[in-house]
Amino acid sequence: MARNPERRAALVDAGVAVLAREGARGLTFRAVDAAAGVPVGTASNYFTGRDDLLRQIDARLHERLAPDPEVLAGLMRRPKDRSLVTAFMHDLMARATRDRDAYLGLLEMRLEATRRPELRASYTKSVRADLEEGMEFHRDMGLPGGDGTVAVLYLAMLGLILEHLTLPDVLEGVLPGVAVPGGLIERVVETIVPEA
Amino acid sequence: MARNPERRAALVDAGVAVLAREGARGLTFRAVDAAAGVPVGTASNYFTGRDDLLRQIDARLHERLAPDPEVLAGLMRRPKDRSLVTAFMHDLMARATRDRDAYLGLLEMRLEATRRPELRASYTKSVRADLEEGMEFHRDMGLPGGDGTVAVLYLAMLGLILEHLTLPDVLEGVLPGVAVPGGLIERVVETIVPEA
Repeated sequence: MARNPERRAALVDAGVAVLAREGARGLTFRAVDAAAGVPVGTASNYFTGRDDLLRQIDARLHERLAPDPEVLAGLMRRPKDRSLVTAFMHDLMARATRDRDAYLGLLEMRLEATRRPELRASYTKSVRADLEEGMEFHRDMGLPGGDGTVAVLYLAMLGLILEHLTLPDVLEGVLPGVAVPGGLIERVVETIVPEA
Repeated sequence: MARNPERRAALVDAGVAVLAREGARGLTFRAVDAAAGVPVGTASNYFTGRDDLLRQIDARLHERLAPDPEVLAGLMRRPKDRSLVTAFMHDLMARATRDRDAYLGLLEMRLEATRRPELRASYTKSVRADLEEGMEFHRDMGLPGGDGTVAVLYLAMLGLILEHLTLPDVLEGVLPGVAVPGGLIERVVETIVPEA
């Protein structure tokens, strides 16, 4: 295995771009080499196989979509009420739309997981860890609502991000006067999270 | 264009199977011919191109996932309260899990729509029609909650079905004593839909 860490990182990010642009089935070493602008055969020196590449992409996607520590720190100074939950959800949506390729990559990985049980296990672990972290954070911060609230909020945001990234016009104007996605996020939080 | 309607239907359903199994990028006329067990070249006599095939698959997916009129009629005899909303959501999940290929096909189409603007327009129309129909139905039946409730419920169920079909173990045991997906559906409805 080749060990240049910058090149490995560039190849993994090229893999994310290929995944978003071509779909999981388009993710070949050759396509990754081309997207990274490196000689054919390079990717095969960095990954033991396609599953290895997919697992490294998975880890990278969670990194790229993680909250910015400074934004988080700023938000954490605010009162621990429902409007703070709304602010966190706005930040989640902002991260997904800002790094659209990464979020589309996550969705492609989900569909690829239905076809590859080995991938499903490791991918389940990373998505589950994100969900549990969210629940723990909500609890530790003393935000309104219990684990059930967080689980339902998680599902509604998953649906909203999926819809907004793939078919943005479906939700446009569906609730008069409610902007997409901002106003809809507020509606989601107000509906699901208790006031205090 | 060839006009044998049974053969056309068989080719479209073969396309759904290819989409679920291979992903959007695997959907070629050759793969459809193979999945349908017909001679190479058959699909090209039935569809003007890949976009035409995708549009016919889209229409077929909505047909395959539509509620059973008898089940619907049975449910509509019940009191118009929140527990009826739960029953409708159980039925929605049952349809998605029973015809898993069709629902995975919808997800593949969403991702394909991010790459093909022509497809996005027609696909947006069919998904939007489903959502508006759901809102109208909820209103006409006098079920509890307004359009905002239905929109948030729609998003949470979209997230739940996506999670359950692609990474079912993520939600397993996340809320102690809440079965997946049944108990979680109940939790979603109780959280989002007002009691009356």
